[in-house]
Amino acid sequence: MATIKDIANKLGISVSTVSKGLNGASDISEQLRQAVFDTAIELGYMPRQMRTKENQRLCIFIENMDYQTVEQFGYDIILGFKQAAYPANYDVSVVPVTPAFQASEKYDTYMLKNSYVGAFIVGFALKDAWMEQFQTTTIPTTLFDNYVRKNPNVSYIGTDSFEGIDDAIEHLIALGHRKIAMISGSWHSMITEQRRQAYVESMAAHDLEIDEKWMPYGYYVAAAAKPHVMKLLSLGVTAIVCGNDLLASGVLDECQAHGFRVPEDVSIVGFDDIPVSARLEPPLTTVRQERLELGKCGFYTLHSAINHVSVCKNLLRPQLIVRNSTGPVKTSDITRGEPFLC
Amino acid sequence: MATIKDIANKLGISVSTVSKGLNGASDISEQLRQAVFDTAIELGYMPRQMRTKENQRLCIFIENMDYQTVEQFGYDIILGFKQAAYPANYDVSVVPVTPAFQASEKYDTYMLKNSYVGAFIVGFALKDAWMEQFQTTTIPTTLFDNYVRKNPNVSYIGTDSFEGIDDAIEHLIALGHRKIAMISGSWHSMITEQRRQAYVESMAAHDLEIDEKWMPYGYYVAAAAKPHVMKLLSLGVTAIVCGNDLLASGVLDECQAHGFRVPEDVSIVGFDDIPVSARLEPPLTTVRQERLELGKCGFYTLHSAINHVSVCKNLLRPQLIVRNSTGPVKTSDITRGEPFLC
Repeated sequence: MATIKDIANKLGISVSTVSKGLNGASDISEQLRQAVFDTAIELGYMPRQMRTKENQRLCIFIENMDYQTVEQFGYDIILGFKQAAYPANYDVSVVPVTPAFQASEKYDTYMLKNSYVGAFIVGFALKDAWMEQFQTTTIPTTLFDNYVRKNPNVSYIGTDSFEGIDDAIEHLIALGHRKIAMISGSWHSMITEQRRQAYVESMAAHDLEIDEKWMPYGYYVAAAAKPHVMKLLSLGVTAIVCGNDLLASGVLDECQAHGFRVPEDVSIVGFDDIPVSARLEPPLTTVRQERLELGKCGFYTLHSAINHVSVCKNLLRPQLIVRNSTGPVKTSDITRGEPFLC
Repeated sequence: MATIKDIANKLGISVSTVSKGLNGASDISEQLRQAVFDTAIELGYMPRQMRTKENQRLCIFIENMDYQTVEQFGYDIILGFKQAAYPANYDVSVVPVTPAFQASEKYDTYMLKNSYVGAFIVGFALKDAWMEQFQTTTIPTTLFDNYVRKNPNVSYIGTDSFEGIDDAIEHLIALGHRKIAMISGSWHSMITEQRRQAYVESMAAHDLEIDEKWMPYGYYVAAAAKPHVMKLLSLGVTAIVCGNDLLASGVLDECQAHGFRVPEDVSIVGFDDIPVSARLEPPLTTVRQERLELGKCGFYTLHSAINHVSVCKNLLRPQLIVRNSTGPVKTSDITRGEPFLC
């Protein structure tokens, strides 16, 4: 293990200057402080607090996701992480971040300054500054719904989209549906592409027709469904799988606004099972992500990495929750109460 | 939690008869004993020993894999599992099994009889009797290199074949190879199909030609390479990726027996990095599976399942180990020292 003296030797400065750099003293330049941190990281130096086994510190960095109330997506993820971490004697901090925050300080530097031995990263976008740094970080780091290739210190956890989407499509097939569309979430999201790919693979595995026109991109909000729903129905689609529950609620609104009954005329499946989904009218059939389990899985995977087990991806089982937004396909030719608007 | 009385009521027999069944007394019929166990499992009954948190018992069932000496593939897997399990206060048994053993007793029954709270399953074949029972077991079960759909109690761990094979192919491309073949392992193996699929995806992702004739099946032993090597070379292949290291050693033997130099005439990549691979002449370039980490990962995943976190798949990072069996493709047209024999 590297010492402060090793850092001093490498930089050709005194031990006391290194110590000042690591401890945030104000009488050295910001440039020199960064050099001290960069060298400490390169040599694998760990402050004493990071070397003791009791009460090691972990950090959850969260962005683009609400987590303050139990109804919000991030709440149970953070709770689950803490529930698994505390019995193993870790302290857990939760730090909300912004792109500006990421631009202001390097990830490894921030971790070392705060004596965090590992981090769980939730809700980051592909273009975030730290995402690039995760490709080379030397600190155990677990990403929720993001994947970095090759770095043995970084792992990806999430829910298995392939099994989840396949469950949804098998359910629709059992109800007689064949023309099944998918409205995806945002471009430039790993999860969007994964669920889209899962849809294509599942449709192919069941010998169903795949048509690019049945696979529009939306965004992970209800309003994003609006431009697509009537167009899909005019193409003869009888069921729509959605990238998440918010999109599905938008599909439901749009169908009902045009006089289509759900599920009698159109079946709808969501993804996530956020709390509100059970209270929609009709209640939403959806692929459930167990958020409490995701949080625990985040901890177990990070704990593995801290113990030198380089997990690449750790995926939870999804669970199809069948409610009333899906039903048997109409046996007659589809007749609708209103002319098409598109 | 179900009690002995619940089992007695459900079967319409006395508590003492249930107790006899659970404790292996000789004065009840084998048929009744099985009914007692089946009902105990159905109702979720756990003997006292399984309910206490200290020294819970785990079992590693192992088949088709040697593990007695440090050179053998299974040795580090079992060691890694124990290294991770003991600090968490679990007892670990290792039970070698055969198809006959599996036919003689149901998996859930065996687990309950022996008060095991979870199992790690190593080396099982798809046709094994217990593999079907894993689809419905209610006991936390982690499979090495086998995958069961949908059952939330069962998880799959292994090494990410896609990243590993892609690393191998990128390495060969950087050396100038374009006509890259793959000799796969045995039919009817999940891992064989996964690595084959990884090869196809990686070749496609790099815009390389894919030809069914370049993708023969072998078996996971050296001799299985023999029928394929000269045929592949006659098709103009300059590099061969193998389903495992034993196959790769067979390719090496066959090349050298026919006067082809490795890597000057042919490049060879293995998978696994078994200990002998570094001592081949030339030493083998291969995709390393960290066996000690696989064992630890098996424990962490099983521990997750025992704590009600339903892991679907947990995959480790592979690591490409570059040795001397791979080299730059010949720039001249390939000229060889011996006429083709096939």
